[in-house]
Amino acid sequence: MNSQTNFSTRRSFLKQAGMLSAGFPALGFLSPSDSNFNMDDESIHIIGPKPGYSPQIGTLVSMMAWMRATVLRSVQNMNQSDLDFLFDANSNTIGSLLMHLAATEAYYQLNTFQGFSDDKLPADFEKKWMGANDLGEAARKQIKGHDLKYYVDIMTETREATLAEFKKRDDAWLMKVDPHYFANQPTNNYCKWFHVCEHESNHNGQIKWYAKRIPGRKSGGE
Amino acid sequence: MNSQTNFSTRRSFLKQAGMLSAGFPALGFLSPSDSNFNMDDESIHIIGPKPGYSPQIGTLVSMMAWMRATVLRSVQNMNQSDLDFLFDANSNTIGSLLMHLAATEAYYQLNTFQGFSDDKLPADFEKKWMGANDLGEAARKQIKGHDLKYYVDIMTETREATLAEFKKRDDAWLMKVDPHYFANQPTNNYCKWFHVCEHESNHNGQIKWYAKRIPGRKSGGE
Repeated sequence: MNSQTNFSTRRSFLKQAGMLSAGFPALGFLSPSDSNFNMDDESIHIIGPKPGYSPQIGTLVSMMAWMRATVLRSVQNMNQSDLDFLFDANSNTIGSLLMHLAATEAYYQLNTFQGFSDDKLPADFEKKWMGANDLGEAARKQIKGHDLKYYVDIMTETREATLAEFKKRDDAWLMKVDPHYFANQPTNNYCKWFHVCEHESNHNGQIKWYAKRIPGRKSGGE
Repeated sequence: MNSQTNFSTRRSFLKQAGMLSAGFPALGFLSPSDSNFNMDDESIHIIGPKPGYSPQIGTLVSMMAWMRATVLRSVQNMNQSDLDFLFDANSNTIGSLLMHLAATEAYYQLNTFQGFSDDKLPADFEKKWMGANDLGEAARKQIKGHDLKYYVDIMTETREATLAEFKKRDDAWLMKVDPHYFANQPTNNYCKWFHVCEHESNHNGQIKWYAKRIPGRKSGGE
């Protein structure tokens, strides 16, 4: 084991973590007034209770903020052509994946804050989010021609609505169990919202994969 | 809005959640004795404190178990050919991605349980995990020719080591801050282990993408 090996290892792990030593520029990308990034840079990597929320909800909020910053880092500086890039006929554009994240969050707002079940969604919700929710052909037809700000504004607006509702609730609500949800089994609100969070990472893995294959682009994770 | 639209929406959201109504078969795939799945089916979708762990560590453990079950569901029934499938010259096989998840977890064990920094890793660790950690060319050369059990056994063994250490620690340890870690900023152990967890979802998004493109296979998420 020599220093070169060590250096390679260290760089690889930093790359794997999605954060090379140049910093965590997604935070600089958003304005300080965006309420989903209103923690300063120094606290973004501290998962735990946050002021304004009950302890467990605050912990969840800190995870969601960390995850969102990671996704936004993957797409920073992308132009419309990057966001509309379609790798193959069955792929989704990066723009549609960003919209899909917002659609998922909007759905879980309805489900957990308002008690809507999956088969009784409001008509205006279906109209607004169906393409983004379904991805595939519907999204390829409907979601294109936008710049990054368009998507980030929708994601941010949706997140702000989530945070406003979280502020009104407590840890007992977070632990509340829906007797039949995932796989028709008992599922608590924490699990539904943890899914909203990890789901961003799921598609971030695809976003980074596509980003590496956009002709002329070099950035993107493994 | 008609019932067909609603049905389509509901199915789509269940698909998006990675859990069609047939159930959550990854749990059946593992033997009940696997210690990282020793909660019964009825509690897998309950995120929160778990017996044997401090409250916050137990909550993290429940997220890691849920995430792992989701990853294993993506690869269930895959044979060696599926696990060695290489989409293009820059891709990683699904087998190497599974090994990469174990390597990442092994690295964070060293970092958070033993205090190793990224540039001073033990030689035996580098030898064992380097290919899986680096992915790319090293992984394409080294990681192939194995069945699913080979990968799952390594992932499970690695997880068991994590859980054994978690049981010895408390929430104060989970909140302990490394002053310079991600982006050279303060990072607590909860953030490092949340990253280990969401990192599984990141690569699961890629695993499902590859799975859909294995000739002859139909399964896999969007």
